Amino acid sequence: MAVNYKAPINDIIFAYDVLDSYNILNKIEKFKDFGLDTLEPIVEECAKFAEEVLAPINSIGDKNGAIFDEGIVKMPPGFKEAYEKFTKAGWSSISLPSDIGGGGLPYGLSAAILEILCTANMAFVLGPGLSIGAISGINFHANQGQKDMYLPDLVAGNWTGTMNLSEPQSGSDLSNISTKATKQDDGTYRITGTKIWIGSGEHDLSENIIHLVLAKVPGSPEGTKGISMFIVPKFVVNDDSSLGGHNKVNCISIEEKLGIHGSPTCVMEYDGSVGYLIGEENMGLNYMFTTINEARIRAGGHGLACTSGALQGASQYARDRVQGRPVGMTKEEAKDSSIIDHADVRRTLMTIKSYLDAMRYMNYDNHLMLDLEYFAEGELKDFGKERCGILTPITKAWISDLSVELTSMAIQVYGGMGYVEETGIAQYFRDARIAPIYAGTNGIQAEDLVFRKITLNDGKAVESLLKEMRTNISSMKEHENLEPLSEILERHVAEIEEATQYLLIELSKGNLAGVSASGTPYLKMFGQVLGGHYMGKAAVTATKNLLEDNAGFYNDKITLSKFYIEQLLPLASSYFSSVMLGKENLYSIDSNSF
Amino acid sequence: MAVNYKAPINDIIFAYDVLDSYNILNKIEKFKDFGLDTLEPIVEECAKFAEEVLAPINSIGDKNGAIFDEGIVKMPPGFKEAYEKFTKAGWSSISLPSDIGGGGLPYGLSAAILEILCTANMAFVLGPGLSIGAISGINFHANQGQKDMYLPDLVAGNWTGTMNLSEPQSGSDLSNISTKATKQDDGTYRITGTKIWIGSGEHDLSENIIHLVLAKVPGSPEGTKGISMFIVPKFVVNDDSSLGGHNKVNCISIEEKLGIHGSPTCVMEYDGSVGYLIGEENMGLNYMFTTINEARIRAGGHGLACTSGALQGASQYARDRVQGRPVGMTKEEAKDSSIIDHADVRRTLMTIKSYLDAMRYMNYDNHLMLDLEYFAEGELKDFGKERCGILTPITKAWISDLSVELTSMAIQVYGGMGYVEETGIAQYFRDARIAPIYAGTNGIQAEDLVFRKITLNDGKAVESLLKEMRTNISSMKEHENLEPLSEILERHVAEIEEATQYLLIELSKGNLAGVSASGTPYLKMFGQVLGGHYMGKAAVTATKNLLEDNAGFYNDKITLSKFYIEQLLPLASSYFSSVMLGKENLYSIDSNSF
Repeated sequence: MAVNYKAPINDIIFAYDVLDSYNILNKIEKFKDFGLDTLEPIVEECAKFAEEVLAPINSIGDKNGAIFDEGIVKMPPGFKEAYEKFTKAGWSSISLPSDIGGGGLPYGLSAAILEILCTANMAFVLGPGLSIGAISGINFHANQGQKDMYLPDLVAGNWTGTMNLSEPQSGSDLSNISTKATKQDDGTYRITGTKIWIGSGEHDLSENIIHLVLAKVPGSPEGTKGISMFIVPKFVVNDDSSLGGHNKVNCISIEEKLGIHGSPTCVMEYDGSVGYLIGEENMGLNYMFTTINEARIRAGGHGLACTSGALQGASQYARDRVQGRPVGMTKEEAKDSSIIDHADVRRTLMTIKSYLDAMRYMNYDNHLMLDLEYFAEGELKDFGKERCGILTPITKAWISDLSVELTSMAIQVYGGMGYVEETGIAQYFRDARIAPIYAGTNGIQAEDLVFRKITLNDGKAVESLLKEMRTNISSMKEHENLEPLSEILERHVAEIEEATQYLLIELSKGNLAGVSASGTPYLKMFGQVLGGHYMGKAAVTATKNLLEDNAGFYNDKITLSKFYIEQLLPLASSYFSSVMLGKENLYSIDSNSF
Repeated sequence: MAVNYKAPINDIIFAYDVLDSYNILNKIEKFKDFGLDTLEPIVEECAKFAEEVLAPINSIGDKNGAIFDEGIVKMPPGFKEAYEKFTKAGWSSISLPSDIGGGGLPYGLSAAILEILCTANMAFVLGPGLSIGAISGINFHANQGQKDMYLPDLVAGNWTGTMNLSEPQSGSDLSNISTKATKQDDGTYRITGTKIWIGSGEHDLSENIIHLVLAKVPGSPEGTKGISMFIVPKFVVNDDSSLGGHNKVNCISIEEKLGIHGSPTCVMEYDGSVGYLIGEENMGLNYMFTTINEARIRAGGHGLACTSGALQGASQYARDRVQGRPVGMTKEEAKDSSIIDHADVRRTLMTIKSYLDAMRYMNYDNHLMLDLEYFAEGELKDFGKERCGILTPITKAWISDLSVELTSMAIQVYGGMGYVEETGIAQYFRDARIAPIYAGTNGIQAEDLVFRKITLNDGKAVESLLKEMRTNISSMKEHENLEPLSEILERHVAEIEEATQYLLIELSKGNLAGVSASGTPYLKMFGQVLGGHYMGKAAVTATKNLLEDNAGFYNDKITLSKFYIEQLLPLASSYFSSVMLGKENLYSIDSNSF
């Protein structure tokens, strides 16, 4: 009875069209020939893999969970076999650079792959996602010897990687981590401390696990400026790449969580484990940010994926379930009807699908900008970096928050059956709930947006995005059918401009506490308007494509944009007063009176 | 580490003040002396019971769940002992009429009792809640012999009761239930069929279980007009009230659910079980509505309770958890700070607490109106009935939808710990998710509102409520501090008036499909504005009380009203375009394209 996943290939390919992806990627030397003919077969192959290998073990992973037994973590039935197929087929490394053995495909493409694989089985995909983080960390910041020693097996998936940041007293704030790294005469360090929230910190999928660990070298500066990053393998790696002894890296427990049961969240104990410094001492947090930024964009992708899966479940159920006669239909008209013909169920599905499209455009665009940031040259690289900077906190927080709401709506379509675990729909809801939390809580994303991002390049980065929104509105006005929508969008763009201006002024006045308090409503407002921007672009693209064969598909896309802009976008305005009021009233009540 | 529940007695007592409860109740003959001195000791006693007996087994119930084993349902550890104390103390029957052995207290008071008990342990309270439904069904519609036979033990809690409506093919739509009731020569019936979603259909808490079962007598009219209601006891009751043989009433399985694990949701099989007709044949659905209406108001109470528990957890955690320095504070200022001093955490707690107050006023008022409907005379009775009619779908749907969102916000305050089941906060989120579904899904509440409720008494019922909102706005204007708030509220009341007028016109034109499509956004908009109305009333009450001792408390209440009206109420406007657009675009996409 679980959801029968079919990757929405047409929607995915259309997203690349909306975002003008091929032109963007072709400006990068190594992607100059990238086109639909490169994309399509990979997406199709990925869909096949996700549907056939990962989706069937999604609810098995949820039901059985990863099992902790005296230091050993046993993954759910079927996960080991699937992992072997997964790495063999190269899905773990498809977007990693080819010079380290990866597929060398753009990040822009990995957005679709992430969506598809993760919709099929989010808990499964989280582990390999963390490996990518560790690989990036090593590839960007480690020395050649370290790269040679660790990357080949990590990229091949023979080993997996993790990120070790949090400690019990140190989660969102890393300034007071207490894990210690003591330098030895041979240049290695001994790592001692406890780390928490370590995704796939221990498991039985691979021969070795390479932990990237943040720790403090005694005598280093206080706070975040004294954090260093170390490679700490579970089994020490010999010079010939064979595995040596166990490195006193122990998983002492795993968390019992609301969701993602197939992904073990470990408490790790390092007890004088041998660690190898990456780069220089005290630069750990900077290094970590490379991988954290990617993790944030991926977290948005997780929200997108849960929503996509939930929509498939809800629409399948709504087509099958017969119950009552839709209001306004005669008995005769209603004889083949199911609950999908009830207006309220329709509204629910339209809401989920419209948002899903907006999420997809936003998340994919963010990935594309990562390609520009990493692989383009000159101004284009700068542009990519700035745009990626703006988009990342919005992608992460807006999408992940919404995904909780939309998976909840999908449960509602099932009625009572939605509350029963057997149907599988509640799993999306439980799995989705992690995305607003990890890779920096959504509150932290809001702080990042208002303090670090709207001020990028003296405010010119956000200005450029707002200008692009205006340009898009002009394009919409060239099409008669989109004129009324362009006017609605225009009003909301004006409002987000006003809010942005207000925050920049308050920042210049030094009103930090006020701006901090405006963070979340501003991010939500920005996300809602940015979603409208992408839906406007989608409507323009679909309108241009209407003359092609597939008019039904493009008309649907125009309808979804219309629905978003007319019915969902107005939510943006409801945040305006909260942005402008800042911290007013927030502190009028004593902490003890809540 | 679970949430340490303390009933918010001051907030609860203030709610009765805001709603002018004593004056309202005193207009009913049997409650003419009811006052704070009656209320306060009961609320305090109830709080003590909830905190000491029910709260400690809340997470035990969640973790262990009810266990099904070959027809037997074993309740979680501690539930049986707690149930004995619960019935002995009279909490199960406190609001039931005294002539049948109940406490004879107003429904208005049971609102507080429901909130307190249910916050402490929702899964536990659901069973006795269903008994109350069965008792009401029997008390209102059964004959004296049946009342004498079943009510004393039901009211005393020696037996429990259930409601059997749904069948696999028949959930929201009861017209095609297939359970059969065949009349016997002795005047009894034989009941055969399968019923699903039967809360507490089987358990080990009481000696007997009295099921109220909807079934069809062969030859009765088609659809809902051919439904009859039967008493079907698990053990047949002899004339001397002793228990006879097992009545072939079997629980064949229980559901594995997202939440409320301590409340068994049973599939019941009736296999020629002896049933006793209540009232007349074919009147079953009418009888059921008595109990369903109360169940809807209670479902709103469940949402309120989950939110209240979640706020307590989140605010406790936020006061204890130290992490980072709040933006804008110096190191010195921040030395005793915890995350509750971070603006974004504050905003979250303010949002939850403001909504919680609005929910409480709304739910309590709905209960008070039930007292007028049942126990007042003449015009006042009519008024109670109409007002109750309008409030019930809004109370049920607006509160329960919000409770999912607000318990999710509470999880967010905990960060990673919110996703770990050990902290107990996720339980509120999972438990809350049922309330939008049961007692008629929230989509059905919206249909009820737009088709049956705004048309009550030719639209005069809703007009009277809108007029009361206007009167309240005038009261606000008498207080200088509330003048700006009154203006915001006024704009939103005007908008809901416009939306209401629009729907009434469309109904008169026969645009049923369009009105149906407007249902949910209209209900959400109405709920948001009605919440603003109550918060306005609260601000007036608090302003008047400011001269009393407890100025800090009343200032907090004014702040919460201000926060609601300035920052949460604007959400209402975002639904306006959806209401006015009705079904436009909803059917432009083919069912198979979702």
